[in-house]
Amino acid sequence: MTVSATLAASETIAARRAAGEEVLALAFGEAGIPVHPLLGQRLARAAGQTSYGPVAGISAAREAAAGYWTRRGLTTDAEQVLLGPGSKPLLFALLSAIGGDVVIPRPAWVSYAAQAKLIGREPIRVPIPVGEGGVPDAEKLEAAVVNARAEGRDPRVVIATLPDNPTGRLASEASVKALCEAARELDLVIVADEIYRDLVFEDGQFPSPAAWAPERTVTTTALSKNYALGGWRIGAARFPSQHGPDSDLGVRLRESVRGIASEVWSSTPMPMQHAAVYAWSDPAELVERLASAQRLHGAVAGAVAEIFRSIGCDVNEPQGGFYVWPDFAPLRGLLAAKWSVGNSADLARVLLDEFGIGVLAGSAFGDDGDEGAETLTLRVAVPGIYGETDSERLAALVSREPLEMPWIADALASLRGKLEALTAA
Amino acid sequence: MTVSATLAASETIAARRAAGEEVLALAFGEAGIPVHPLLGQRLARAAGQTSYGPVAGISAAREAAAGYWTRRGLTTDAEQVLLGPGSKPLLFALLSAIGGDVVIPRPAWVSYAAQAKLIGREPIRVPIPVGEGGVPDAEKLEAAVVNARAEGRDPRVVIATLPDNPTGRLASEASVKALCEAARELDLVIVADEIYRDLVFEDGQFPSPAAWAPERTVTTTALSKNYALGGWRIGAARFPSQHGPDSDLGVRLRESVRGIASEVWSSTPMPMQHAAVYAWSDPAELVERLASAQRLHGAVAGAVAEIFRSIGCDVNEPQGGFYVWPDFAPLRGLLAAKWSVGNSADLARVLLDEFGIGVLAGSAFGDDGDEGAETLTLRVAVPGIYGETDSERLAALVSREPLEMPWIADALASLRGKLEALTAA
Repeated sequence: MTVSATLAASETIAARRAAGEEVLALAFGEAGIPVHPLLGQRLARAAGQTSYGPVAGISAAREAAAGYWTRRGLTTDAEQVLLGPGSKPLLFALLSAIGGDVVIPRPAWVSYAAQAKLIGREPIRVPIPVGEGGVPDAEKLEAAVVNARAEGRDPRVVIATLPDNPTGRLASEASVKALCEAARELDLVIVADEIYRDLVFEDGQFPSPAAWAPERTVTTTALSKNYALGGWRIGAARFPSQHGPDSDLGVRLRESVRGIASEVWSSTPMPMQHAAVYAWSDPAELVERLASAQRLHGAVAGAVAEIFRSIGCDVNEPQGGFYVWPDFAPLRGLLAAKWSVGNSADLARVLLDEFGIGVLAGSAFGDDGDEGAETLTLRVAVPGIYGETDSERLAALVSREPLEMPWIADALASLRGKLEALTAA
Repeated sequence: MTVSATLAASETIAARRAAGEEVLALAFGEAGIPVHPLLGQRLARAAGQTSYGPVAGISAAREAAAGYWTRRGLTTDAEQVLLGPGSKPLLFALLSAIGGDVVIPRPAWVSYAAQAKLIGREPIRVPIPVGEGGVPDAEKLEAAVVNARAEGRDPRVVIATLPDNPTGRLASEASVKALCEAARELDLVIVADEIYRDLVFEDGQFPSPAAWAPERTVTTTALSKNYALGGWRIGAARFPSQHGPDSDLGVRLRESVRGIASEVWSSTPMPMQHAAVYAWSDPAELVERLASAQRLHGAVAGAVAEIFRSIGCDVNEPQGGFYVWPDFAPLRGLLAAKWSVGNSADLARVLLDEFGIGVLAGSAFGDDGDEGAETLTLRVAVPGIYGETDSERLAALVSREPLEMPWIADALASLRGKLEALTAA
């Protein structure tokens, strides 16, 4: 197993910078915001919490997570919750516990496919609905699962990412409902990765699969993106409560994940759990921080999307998280002639080597197009634009007009200039 | 997969205590010592470290771990080191990366076998040398591996635990050398779990497999036992540097584990890594803490061993860690007649239900005896005796005569009384 594409890109860029190269680091999924001081305080105060604690997490943290989901429209009991050191290990344990083949959207976050392979399963990739992201198209899902079963494969789980990484799109309610119906018909568990849920830019109904398929949806969250605490490693999973004919599915699945957790990571770091008690209780000062984060991510993602659009890319408007997903297909001829670029990996390499822009190729997310056609998509993580220091990033975060911060305006202008040079005839 | 036997027992005992039952909790492998204030400070100060950081760990922490091993006789470069959120996930990733069947001593810590099963492998259990613990008997190892290969199985790795959990014994230099020779002849990787290394009671040469089989030994450590920081989840693995005919084994294995780590847990919590930089640099105040911990664990383990011996058990003298491993075989007739006890699980149940003593059955550690005979061994974790509060535990830790602390003397007297009642004719 090679290192995760996003982490590998981040380390490559860090090494180039350490060697004195100037690189605009837009490859890594890090939210780029300093820790809220009250969260830092909670962690510091919990330094004396050194016992292993329960595998599933301390009850105060499970209760807080239950409150977090309940306030967001998914009534949750602490008994349905299980903590983990990030949502990534929870997703791994979930896929291991469910067993069987894994259906993932195309494109999708890099680690779903890698985790499926780690448990000995080749992922089944199903295209997203046109213009959306994060869920497989329901009709294509049905065809793919029926087909896979006819071939003797055993698909048991489908993954959804809301809002999506890499596309930055939030699946429509209609697409999520269709996914839920298809999953029920096909008897698939839905794993809804909602790690970016608090970072949707516009208010409105959030289309959580657990609302329409409560009996078969496991939802995951974490503090890595909303509060930019990736390095603290804290996540949680919400299992189904008793519903429908297979009413103990949630209990069985949670117990199985708890068993795997006990043998793979024991428990979630205790000081982090105590900080999570506070974060998941949605105190006013953190709710305000989320509003600022939404504003910053939304403004910069929108500006970056506009830049890619201006040079001729197809770009859907980002709706949440902090990613932009430009498609260079309209520029295929120019890129081939000028840069010998034939696919997204070539394109990412040219951007890094010739322009000092670090992004990830769409192919890292399984975006190979229909019948393995070469695509020219990129995933652009915009927090690399927020500033070079904590004080710049904090100023950007609290600003009503983040695009007017000089370093952000400069970075956007530089990005525009480089992309214009890339695509100049 | 069910929950790890040690964690399950700990949660059962906690639930009984919460319900008002009096239980002497001797089941769980928790060191029972408060955090050193200077370690707590380091964690608190690093609360602002929120980036994911490199998968392998920050270089300062890898360098500190390299220094830790170098000072203990295993010259180590930071490039050989990989951090993880505890040594448990590192062991899981190692077994996954090595692939093939896993040879473990009988008895051995509960999670090795569980992890092997999680990656789809049935463990091959090989008895320990008589009177020792933590390594398989080398002659029996050779026979078992040759036999397994003849049956079409694919053993590739053997695990050693120094000093051992559950037996509390430190394998002899002769047994470790024999293991190393056998592993070389059989082309097995050795995984040396040295999480209790700093808690050996007597000074002397430490028989680390990496000293005699440097080309094929991966050594793991953590802060969970020596500094009682299980709830912080911080561990490290040391891979072979370039040696012998397969000189890039260490590099390949580390890269493979790094890949798995990147997809299962991303990175080790950053605030913990900063605390580890301090811990692994062996500052004087922490070296002193280790001496106190050795004295406390050694005194209480010795006293507990003596109590079990006094009622007629076979008990080898504990040499490191904080476990006692009494064998009730000499009392088999009495236990069968008086309590209908036929195996170690029965015995553990009677101790919990009738006497309020929580311990683990030897069978949880795979101790089924030759040809699956029923054994009557128990694993007794002694830190449950150190006190009920942090101030009691701290007083016990710093005392020159921990057995004279009134609560420790009381607990030992109570244990003796209950065991005498158990075995009275």
